[in-house]
Amino acid sequence: MVRYKATIAYDGTDFAGFQIQRNGRTVQEALELVLTKLNSGQPVKIHGSGRTDSGVHALGQVIHFDLPQVRDTEKLRFALDTQTSAEIAVLKVVQVSDDFHARFNPHRKTYHYRLTTSRANNPLMCRYRYHFPKLTAVDQMRTAAQLLVGTHDFTGFTASGATVEDKVRTISQADVVRVGQDELLFIFSGNGFLYKQVRNMVGTLIKIGAGKWPAERISEILSAKNRDLAGPTAAAHGLCLMEVRYDDDHNT
Amino acid sequence: MVRYKATIAYDGTDFAGFQIQRNGRTVQEALELVLTKLNSGQPVKIHGSGRTDSGVHALGQVIHFDLPQVRDTEKLRFALDTQTSAEIAVLKVVQVSDDFHARFNPHRKTYHYRLTTSRANNPLMCRYRYHFPKLTAVDQMRTAAQLLVGTHDFTGFTASGATVEDKVRTISQADVVRVGQDELLFIFSGNGFLYKQVRNMVGTLIKIGAGKWPAERISEILSAKNRDLAGPTAAAHGLCLMEVRYDDDHNT
Repeated sequence: MVRYKATIAYDGTDFAGFQIQRNGRTVQEALELVLTKLNSGQPVKIHGSGRTDSGVHALGQVIHFDLPQVRDTEKLRFALDTQTSAEIAVLKVVQVSDDFHARFNPHRKTYHYRLTTSRANNPLMCRYRYHFPKLTAVDQMRTAAQLLVGTHDFTGFTASGATVEDKVRTISQADVVRVGQDELLFIFSGNGFLYKQVRNMVGTLIKIGAGKWPAERISEILSAKNRDLAGPTAAAHGLCLMEVRYDDDHNT
Repeated sequence: MVRYKATIAYDGTDFAGFQIQRNGRTVQEALELVLTKLNSGQPVKIHGSGRTDSGVHALGQVIHFDLPQVRDTEKLRFALDTQTSAEIAVLKVVQVSDDFHARFNPHRKTYHYRLTTSRANNPLMCRYRYHFPKLTAVDQMRTAAQLLVGTHDFTGFTASGATVEDKVRTISQADVVRVGQDELLFIFSGNGFLYKQVRNMVGTLIKIGAGKWPAERISEILSAKNRDLAGPTAAAHGLCLMEVRYDDDHNT
């Protein structure tokens, strides 16, 4: 078996998320269908660096899969890219060592969350940006975002039903950047994020930006580990997985 | 009657163009439905600066319409913006003099056509950019675009069946600009464009950029006035009406 690592992009609007499930079209299923066809009908399973929820986009999701033979990686990339729908792009395929695992190899993920504060919502961007015209305290949001940086127990920012045991994660970057006249870009990098963590952090920052809560609310949520203190989960369509960077980069 | 001028934006993907027609959903129809509702059920007709074809987008289309009473323009804008679907945004509404006409008042229009040359097509941009990886002669395209500038009979660049008599138009700007690593932006400004003219000019420039024709082909098409010499009509989804600027701007 030969292992391949691929970098993919997708418009999550019409997918029920990345990971295969009983009901609904998923990115994983769409890719596995094409890979299985390319593999003479023998099933091929792909492994993502993690799942993304329904409606969430990706410009740099990473997956791995095995095929029985060595292939020309550009031909393989082209076949996967063109045989999936326009909503999925396969940006890069490389051969990697057998022990590479997209999920378990240590990595840093970067997410962007885009928000527009314009009065009218630009229809050419509305699939990719959350529309929220009433932000008054952007500086407070920035201060609050900085309180997320570091190693913390993020129980307060994950979904209540989350099953994973260890909720300690390290966030290395949490910035709120103005882009142009009316866009805010939230940038989060870290060694892993819990289920719905990014959207719950954004939903909380939006409450702070709207002047409802002080920046210190972040510290309270972190220390109380209580989901009820955090803001609502921000809408999925503003979120995009931008990059998965592996610590051990020699095989990419 | 009070006349209003509005600047609107739309994602043309799922519309059968701007102008009302028997079959298919149009931007005009969507706006007239909401305006008629706001006008207590009395029909309101809107007039655009011109039509845009099925699949073509707009970020600065201009329309006018009449209502029986003076209204708060921001309230009117908000009502129109929020009561139409997310595919249509109403950016601005101003009251204008009775003799303003979106189509007949002299104006300059600016269109953008976006093309990406990336190997894999970014799924988050694929509704708004034409994907054409094989451009080899971008400098030739630039030279060719300059040959379009000026006052010419554009018969060779309009659809064969076009009924308008006078096919002389003036193009004040025809630029091909690189944006980032893999995007080309075509910018056209002029005092009016014939049916399918912009897309036919782009289709011809793409042939030149692909090395199939020399830049001088543009001059041949202009002097021969023969549509058969020009390139194919470029795909609608790359095109966006960016701005309609009226010569007489005191009432805007």
